[in-house]
Amino acid sequence: MKTKILIDMDGVLADVYKPLIMEEYTKNNKIINESDLNGIAEYDAFPNLRKIVTSNNFFRNAPIMDGSIEGLKYLNEKYDVLIVSSATEFPNCINDKQNWLEEHFPFISWEQMIFCGKKESVCGDIMIDDHPKNLVYFKGKKIIFTQPHNYNINNSEYIRVFSWKEIQNIL
Amino acid sequence: MKTKILIDMDGVLADVYKPLIMEEYTKNNKIINESDLNGIAEYDAFPNLRKIVTSNNFFRNAPIMDGSIEGLKYLNEKYDVLIVSSATEFPNCINDKQNWLEEHFPFISWEQMIFCGKKESVCGDIMIDDHPKNLVYFKGKKIIFTQPHNYNINNSEYIRVFSWKEIQNIL
Repeated sequence: MKTKILIDMDGVLADVYKPLIMEEYTKNNKIINESDLNGIAEYDAFPNLRKIVTSNNFFRNAPIMDGSIEGLKYLNEKYDVLIVSSATEFPNCINDKQNWLEEHFPFISWEQMIFCGKKESVCGDIMIDDHPKNLVYFKGKKIIFTQPHNYNINNSEYIRVFSWKEIQNIL
Repeated sequence: MKTKILIDMDGVLADVYKPLIMEEYTKNNKIINESDLNGIAEYDAFPNLRKIVTSNNFFRNAPIMDGSIEGLKYLNEKYDVLIVSSATEFPNCINDKQNWLEEHFPFISWEQMIFCGKKESVCGDIMIDDHPKNLVYFKGKKIIFTQPHNYNINNSEYIRVFSWKEIQNIL
């Protein structure tokens, strides 16, 4: 039986910082770099986050994280891959998320998708996630995908990666 | 820690046979009873099943299974309840399913919802489901909710129930 890997969507496959920065700052003529937000929680960095992500097909149009298509294809051949997204928090967004996955990662079947609230009841061997709140409950190997909000998290239980290239190197 | 129960939607909380019978038979002037379909697989009973469930807001308007509101409220107070639905098989239906849950079972929070493909990676202590394909992998207590398609299934591992009243009696 193949090793089972649970892979998060937002902040791992989908780059949500780019469109959030665009909506929260650039549209208001503020120039900021992603690194300006290092160590700042998402809701503090983006006070209008909830409003932004629940409008204008945010999840349907999210940019793809660099290297994630090639990286996920690699993992999908070697491991039993599940895509696990905390998606029920935002109303009416799951159809968009599923359509986005089907468009950009067509080698992932509907059987491999899990859209949930809390992730603690989803079991596997390895978890790749940008949120400590998901990693903390997990009983297997924990890989934290670097995003500005988790930049300063220092937990010896987590293997920190900065890119999909790194994921391919370590797995 | 409370015992964790995984509860299916279609065929346990949502009565899908009534609207399927309406669309497949009654609209074509055929009168059938649900019991006429005992022992017949869903796709054999309803050759147009895929077309029916992916149109006309099927999941948004599904009738509520008798006794399920009171029954789920009871379970939700006593146990750690998760609603687990194999929903990714049919495109663009999950928003409808989530909205349906929120309308009819408002005491279930977004954190308790899981919309997935295969259920085998979702862990818990008890599973209530009408489909043997979900129960077969499960490692905990297995309760099969009677629906016509599973009527003749005879598996000593399953506790068979015929109603939500029975569920409240045994749990």
